[in-house]
Amino acid sequence: MQKNTNIRLEQLLHGGDYNPEQWLDSPEILEKDLEFFLKANINVITVGMFSWSVLEPEDGKYQIDWLIEIVNKMYQNGIYTILGTPSGARPQWLAKSYPEVLRVNANRERQLFGARHNHCYTSLAYRKKVRDINMLLAKELGNHPGIILLHLSNEYGGDCHCPLCQAKFREWLKERYKTIEELNRRWNTTFWSHIYQDFEQVESPSPKGEMLLHALNLDWRRFVTAQTVDFAEWEKQAIRDGGCEKPITTNFMGDYDGLNYRKFKEVLDIASWDSYPEWHRKPEIQTARETAMQHDFMRSLLKKPFLLMESSPSSTNWQDVSKLRKPGILRAASLQAIAHGSDSALYFQMRQSKGASEKLHGAVIDHYGGEDTRVYQEVCQVGKALAELTELRGTKQNSKIALLYDTENRWALMDAQGPRNCGMPYKETADKMYAALRRQGVNVDVIDMEDVLKDYQIILIPMLYMFRAGIEKKIRAFVENGGTVIMTFWSGVVDDADSCFLGETPSKLTDVLGLRRTEIDGLYDEEENTAIPKKNNSLSLNKKYTCRNLCELVKVSDAEVLMTYEKDFYKGLPVLTCNQYGKGRIYYVCADMEEAFYTDLIEAVFEKEKIEKPFSFIPEGVEVTTRQSKEDSYLIVQNFNREAVALDFPKSNYEVIYGTQSEKLDSFSTVVLKKVK
Amino acid sequence: MQKNTNIRLEQLLHGGDYNPEQWLDSPEILEKDLEFFLKANINVITVGMFSWSVLEPEDGKYQIDWLIEIVNKMYQNGIYTILGTPSGARPQWLAKSYPEVLRVNANRERQLFGARHNHCYTSLAYRKKVRDINMLLAKELGNHPGIILLHLSNEYGGDCHCPLCQAKFREWLKERYKTIEELNRRWNTTFWSHIYQDFEQVESPSPKGEMLLHALNLDWRRFVTAQTVDFAEWEKQAIRDGGCEKPITTNFMGDYDGLNYRKFKEVLDIASWDSYPEWHRKPEIQTARETAMQHDFMRSLLKKPFLLMESSPSSTNWQDVSKLRKPGILRAASLQAIAHGSDSALYFQMRQSKGASEKLHGAVIDHYGGEDTRVYQEVCQVGKALAELTELRGTKQNSKIALLYDTENRWALMDAQGPRNCGMPYKETADKMYAALRRQGVNVDVIDMEDVLKDYQIILIPMLYMFRAGIEKKIRAFVENGGTVIMTFWSGVVDDADSCFLGETPSKLTDVLGLRRTEIDGLYDEEENTAIPKKNNSLSLNKKYTCRNLCELVKVSDAEVLMTYEKDFYKGLPVLTCNQYGKGRIYYVCADMEEAFYTDLIEAVFEKEKIEKPFSFIPEGVEVTTRQSKEDSYLIVQNFNREAVALDFPKSNYEVIYGTQSEKLDSFSTVVLKKVK
Amino acid sequence: MQKNTNIRLEQLLHGGDYNPEQWLDSPEILEKDLEFFLKANINVITVGMFSWSVLEPEDGKYQIDWLIEIVNKMYQNGIYTILGTPSGARPQWLAKSYPEVLRVNANRERQLFGARHNHCYTSLAYRKKVRDINMLLAKELGNHPGIILLHLSNEYGGDCHCPLCQAKFREWLKERYKTIEELNRRWNTTFWSHIYQDFEQVESPSPKGEMLLHALNLDWRRFVTAQTVDFAEWEKQAIRDGGCEKPITTNFMGDYDGLNYRKFKEVLDIASWDSYPEWHRKPEIQTARETAMQHDFMRSLLKKPFLLMESSPSSTNWQDVSKLRKPGILRAASLQAIAHGSDSALYFQMRQSKGASEKLHGAVIDHYGGEDTRVYQEVCQVGKALAELTELRGTKQNSKIALLYDTENRWALMDAQGPRNCGMPYKETADKMYAALRRQGVNVDVIDMEDVLKDYQIILIPMLYMFRAGIEKKIRAFVENGGTVIMTFWSGVVDDADSCFLGETPSKLTDVLGLRRTEIDGLYDEEENTAIPKKNNSLSLNKKYTCRNLCELVKVSDAEVLMTYEKDFYKGLPVLTCNQYGKGRIYYVCADMEEAFYTDLIEAVFEKEKIEKPFSFIPEGVEVTTRQSKEDSYLIVQNFNREAVALDFPKSNYEVIYGTQSEKLDSFSTVVLKKVK
Repeated sequence: MQKNTNIRLEQLLHGGDYNPEQWLDSPEILEKDLEFFLKANINVITVGMFSWSVLEPEDGKYQIDWLIEIVNKMYQNGIYTILGTPSGARPQWLAKSYPEVLRVNANRERQLFGARHNHCYTSLAYRKKVRDINMLLAKELGNHPGIILLHLSNEYGGDCHCPLCQAKFREWLKERYKTIEELNRRWNTTFWSHIYQDFEQVESPSPKGEMLLHALNLDWRRFVTAQTVDFAEWEKQAIRDGGCEKPITTNFMGDYDGLNYRKFKEVLDIASWDSYPEWHRKPEIQTARETAMQHDFMRSLLKKPFLLMESSPSSTNWQDVSKLRKPGILRAASLQAIAHGSDSALYFQMRQSKGASEKLHGAVIDHYGGEDTRVYQEVCQVGKALAELTELRGTKQNSKIALLYDTENRWALMDAQGPRNCGMPYKETADKMYAALRRQGVNVDVIDMEDVLKDYQIILIPMLYMFRAGIEKKIRAFVENGGTVIMTFWSGVVDDADSCFLGETPSKLTDVLGLRRTEIDGLYDEEENTAIPKKNNSLSLNKKYTCRNLCELVKVSDAEVLMTYEKDFYKGLPVLTCNQYGKGRIYYVCADMEEAFYTDLIEAVFEKEKIEKPFSFIPEGVEVTTRQSKEDSYLIVQNFNREAVALDFPKSNYEVIYGTQSEKLDSFSTVVLKKVK
Repeated sequence: MQKNTNIRLEQLLHGGDYNPEQWLDSPEILEKDLEFFLKANINVITVGMFSWSVLEPEDGKYQIDWLIEIVNKMYQNGIYTILGTPSGARPQWLAKSYPEVLRVNANRERQLFGARHNHCYTSLAYRKKVRDINMLLAKELGNHPGIILLHLSNEYGGDCHCPLCQAKFREWLKERYKTIEELNRRWNTTFWSHIYQDFEQVESPSPKGEMLLHALNLDWRRFVTAQTVDFAEWEKQAIRDGGCEKPITTNFMGDYDGLNYRKFKEVLDIASWDSYPEWHRKPEIQTARETAMQHDFMRSLLKKPFLLMESSPSSTNWQDVSKLRKPGILRAASLQAIAHGSDSALYFQMRQSKGASEKLHGAVIDHYGGEDTRVYQEVCQVGKALAELTELRGTKQNSKIALLYDTENRWALMDAQGPRNCGMPYKETADKMYAALRRQGVNVDVIDMEDVLKDYQIILIPMLYMFRAGIEKKIRAFVENGGTVIMTFWSGVVDDADSCFLGETPSKLTDVLGLRRTEIDGLYDEEENTAIPKKNNSLSLNKKYTCRNLCELVKVSDAEVLMTYEKDFYKGLPVLTCNQYGKGRIYYVCADMEEAFYTDLIEAVFEKEKIEKPFSFIPEGVEVTTRQSKEDSYLIVQNFNREAVALDFPKSNYEVIYGTQSEKLDSFSTVVLKKVK
Repeated sequence: MQKNTNIRLEQLLHGGDYNPEQWLDSPEILEKDLEFFLKANINVITVGMFSWSVLEPEDGKYQIDWLIEIVNKMYQNGIYTILGTPSGARPQWLAKSYPEVLRVNANRERQLFGARHNHCYTSLAYRKKVRDINMLLAKELGNHPGIILLHLSNEYGGDCHCPLCQAKFREWLKERYKTIEELNRRWNTTFWSHIYQDFEQVESPSPKGEMLLHALNLDWRRFVTAQTVDFAEWEKQAIRDGGCEKPITTNFMGDYDGLNYRKFKEVLDIASWDSYPEWHRKPEIQTARETAMQHDFMRSLLKKPFLLMESSPSSTNWQDVSKLRKPGILRAASLQAIAHGSDSALYFQMRQSKGASEKLHGAVIDHYGGEDTRVYQEVCQVGKALAELTELRGTKQNSKIALLYDTENRWALMDAQGPRNCGMPYKETADKMYAALRRQGVNVDVIDMEDVLKDYQIILIPMLYMFRAGIEKKIRAFVENGGTVIMTFWSGVVDDADSCFLGETPSKLTDVLGLRRTEIDGLYDEEENTAIPKKNNSLSLNKKYTCRNLCELVKVSDAEVLMTYEKDFYKGLPVLTCNQYGKGRIYYVCADMEEAFYTDLIEAVFEKEKIEKPFSFIPEGVEVTTRQSKEDSYLIVQNFNREAVALDFPKSNYEVIYGTQSEKLDSFSTVVLKKVK
């Protein structure tokens, strides 16, 4: 049987999570649901995710007919099914019969039954029960023509500190370091007399034990990812062993740093994620950009279209404030996913639960249950839009620009103790760089240190505290061969065991950069400095910008200094430098700069490097992306302002395939253009 | 023996908590205390509450003579005694000999000995020891002519998660739901695969287990109340079995939501509570109103005079800031209790402890120990006032207005997850409504969903999220028969298992209201909207008011729209409606309005419904109430402003029985008038 | 062998913590270190502190040659060694083999291996292992001519609640109170029925048990100090039993209230501490004064020169913000220690660790490893300065002024519950008084209630809530004999078991003060009052000052009233009084006053009492101290302003021995003058 890693369905997916098992005693409800689905162009539902206690009400006693019936009925009505495995929430009996499946927290307390996403990933008892039910689902439904995708568990996350996990962790360390001496050396355990004599002495980090050995913390996080990937692999194998070769995904969370999602690449055929932005908390364009970065991260994982697996059709119930989405936002957000490479706009949830913790979460069909709701009407609009945009399905998103944002670096950076324990602006710096790139209207890949750099023209590298995976060599080669890099302060400080490099830093790149770091100053929250441009600098920068939080002091050997500090004892020292190395150029930003700095810097660098942009001028608040197939090229334009804005659409070469092209682009509206061949 | 549910004492009680066991080795102190009491018109003391380790220094070895001696001595001096049972704090030996009496917290940790109010209510060992000592006290002192009231324990509260309580909880659930299937159905356990197969699988809520199953949380709180009531009943039975038939009370806490105090109705002969307002933190009138609402709640419990059981004669020691009360506040606060139906003004405490956690709590007699203290002098003034007002004792407080403020609704509402997790304004809305009512100078009952509605003219119903106890039927009948209701947003959402009603909401009242809810918008803290009046609305409202936090969107079928939103996408939708139903009218407030809105609305409704008021105009900051006996009617007027205010006292028909009636009412002063027959 | 309690080295010490065991596999690094040391005038290193797992890699298997080699090599190069005992961090094997050495926290949870400073002080197993290694170190190195000082453990602190400690605590209590009846009496356990029948029932304070019995809390803190002192004594005895009679110290922490450092007097030959001020967070002079108070406290412990044992040569890594020190601050801070009686300026650390929690902490030699760092250059400047100031070594610091700041009082005061639980300004009041004193340029001793008072002229006593150790008698005698006291509000409230005094307070001093306390008012954070001067008051005070937080009300019998409250119901009551008693005077400050009040009060009192000052006028921001030997007298002047200030140096009688005396004193610069004989 040949494995197909893509969904065999020539539509953009529209639908979402559906829990018919909550309504089995109300067939009239299920009947009504189908009507709603059909009217709203729903073509896919996701089932099974929290159905374990209905699928297997007693240990070994399965009850799957109801699910087959749903899948059949949907299929007969042209609706496809994404089949979830139920491991995200176990039945009561499973916890009672096999207590080892219950997680132990960092304080070494075994949890009680409750909530969800809280099983031990190592427990063989759990793995066995998961394997059994996954195989059964695969066998009974895996080859059903209505099933288009298998969905592993739900939002994998968290860690377990039980004895089984401790033992596995020690094995993993042994595999990594071979000898305890090597572990001691890499972890620098001589500090505070922590030398291990034996792998058996290693314990996972704990507030009642060790929390300050950074390499232990880092390796524990790596192990948790590895063990979770192993669990996902196990789930997948059960599906394959059950005879199902359909593509497999799991739903990731936005900006989640509990796991290094990059490590799931091998397990997944398709990447997917759950997007729950807090619309209307900040200006909509800011929320849109933060969401876009997540979309781009998910697309960059497998470098192909991903799925928006969950999103709320109205408000969530678990954010501080359940804010209603203003009219038009649902469609704008759904089409933004498509604009960034998604082949779907799916919801959590199709019908609201009656009780328990998410009963007030938004849904396509609410407790009221009528069609005359604003939410349902907007869902219908999305359904219509997706149908009109069918040809976008499967198209790619080419990018010559990459932002390097690395999860392992994030772990180490945030854990480092110093130079600012009250806030290290890693995410913030990446966000500012990303926003600056988006203002240029170019597609952006979000990559990590393990990725190949050579295919890009420009790479932005915020705060790369840790150098691993040969990144310093890759950066050197990239620049040498003509690439452009913008790198910032606090890069190249530690190796992959979070151990400081001796000698000049950013380690092994000081000749490429034409400078070395001497000190780094932490600023109190209320402090700031200013960067002022040097006369006749090579980028013609001519404004002042504020710096906060961190100001690095460097000693320049070869680089051009473009901007300098305005005050403090390091007045006159460089804030921005540029060094020509080989055929390329590398910029170094010494301080935590305000967003306007990055916007102007990137605009100037784009001009210098002659980067192509879809529009010569994009008004603030407007988002532009492109998607490409072998034959066609599409331009997607969205206005995230609360007012209409004027925009110079291309006069020729493009035809409108969605929305209305006029002199003004309406608030929260989308226009899709196709290049005329 | 005939049970007397009232205190046989024709005085307003003055006195309070007294711990002579702390001074048994200083007879001169006890002698001095008596002198102080007599000079201050103290006529009652409360003893025994924390005396267990003196009363029973060793398991089964009692030592009660000292207590009898105190009671005798007081009685001989005309001072009566309230006899407390000592269950609020157990002796050390009891915890050592019977470890099961120590509570287990939600994290399943057995507590050590310490503090107080922390015994397991289920433990038979504890119950047995409590029964023994209560019976002994009843036998030895219960029929002493000096004893006028039995006082159970102290400030019942908290919960215990020990195995004994878990077992009892399961029994309680079985009693409630009969079958596990029914529990699953009502709790909606299919969500997140939580189906129970057996009552044995149920565990109380725990941060290390389940916290998100709302129906479980709600039933746990109900069970805790039930078990506490059962414990109180057990204590009472021991007293009765000891041969004492005197009235029984227990001291409640202000605005405490750990227990549903309504469920104690059957146990108590007299309601009483401990009032500790933070005077001078807010404007005094605001503190006075918040306190008044608690008084009214306590009075409404048994619909008869209650007791102010504790209050501080000066500052407390456990609030953030131990603020001194300004001169006159002690008397004003004491008489405010009387004004709202109390037959007492009692203090914690008569004499300050020398050491331990409350050593710095205010007392009638302080460590200094002289009579020349400001506090003692003010206590004497209160004593004098109470003596002058003796005839108020036992008089009732008739009210045609009720505020429905329901503890179970509060539990469900605060636990609901959505639409605002950072603050649901239930208490705040009730407070604003109550303040608006108090500005009219009318008496107010504070009732819950189990109360009878039909005797009122107007009922105010803030945020009645949960409908239970047939409240929707009672409201319908009340309006139909000519009553007036003011109901707010977020009413009628869930049933008594916290499960959402399907169909139109407020459930089963949409025809009465002439509208249905469509959506509810959560506002961020910094956001607001405005309600603007419709021209020629039937209440002639003509001002604008601010709304915050929550804005409900409704679809009107029949109701009159009186005010609308000024902005956002729901601009023009109703904020205030009124519907005529049967002979009555029901108003619906869609948003969380500022206090001025309720003040103006209620003034307008009072005018429309021709509600009688004692004064045509009451200056801001002045409190007015009435008390009535079969023969007489009293008008109590208090000025809570820091300045004197002008007030038009009735020119005839009334005589002054306390205070001075002049053109101005002094700051913090009280005048009591009696209707001339 | 005669014990020498002073270091036999005629230099001011310069150097610090050094961990060569982290670099044993890099001899080139160790070689380089020595070069660095010599160039920077480093004359001492501290070793051994966290070396246990290298010194004893397996239970009973020692490996000490590397350490001897380091000491030898240093000695051969003129560098001396402070030898630390390694008890601050145990090896992994020790925790595994003897689990009783792991602390149990207040929640009764045994900790896992990890971090440091976390051994049970009671465990005999731990004591035995510590004794063995200390004896070995003493034997092998104790008489090495390069070893000048023994350094016990590192920053003793924390507590352990294990069964061994509980048993020891009970023994300690039995020793203190003899009978359980006496304990009950002193602790006032009748309150809340807490009477103990037996010492066996006593448990240490716990959040899951008792936290509110103040006398228990207080005695637990005393016990923890006693047990820690006992442990230090045990460590010392092992050194002595190992044949080493050299002086002994341990490094204290700044403003640490976990231990009563005064109780270590008998154990230590030399006091030392670790100074980590947050430079540049507040105005530098404020940081300097707060640091100076710690220096003075350490000097006052043994009334002789102390050591600055640790300080960061640049930023720390564990404060919120790792702020760089501005140029000059390192030298100013180092010389400030000297100015206040230190005979050293030592650093943590000589070379930065590569990994683990303190890898980013500042060091003399950083990861870069070159000499051309700003930090190293400034360290060299310090080395040079210390060499020039060699003659200051061993000189004393005479003081006629004392500030009484008592740790046990602090414990009781902060634990008291009332009158302000959201902040009692003990430290703040002491800081304000100290700053006022420093503005006068006089030396100040920081003493406690156990100290002798009679040698001082003026004693400042902030908030002496607890009276113990006969302090009321000592104060009476001191004033009677002509001394001047400035005492504040909230003094003389409780005895040494935290039990309130009955009768007039401040207890047994009301006749000396000429007043008694009546009440104390807590102010909310946003409230304030004002003190206004009485006309013709004896100090000629003529300004208004703000009071906050606490306003005490007193009734004057004999005292002169100098200032009164401006508002509230206690308007006109005294804020400042003065009473002549015997030959002396005692001032009483009734409210928490702003710093300017203390500055003006102390200036006026100094004038009245004719206190000698080194300068008639000291500009704000300039620090002045004096040191004296039998023959010579030195005047040290430091400018902590960011700008140069004009200063009138003495025109004659003094010669400059360090720095430059000109009309202006440069920012962060120091001048040392020597009296010409």
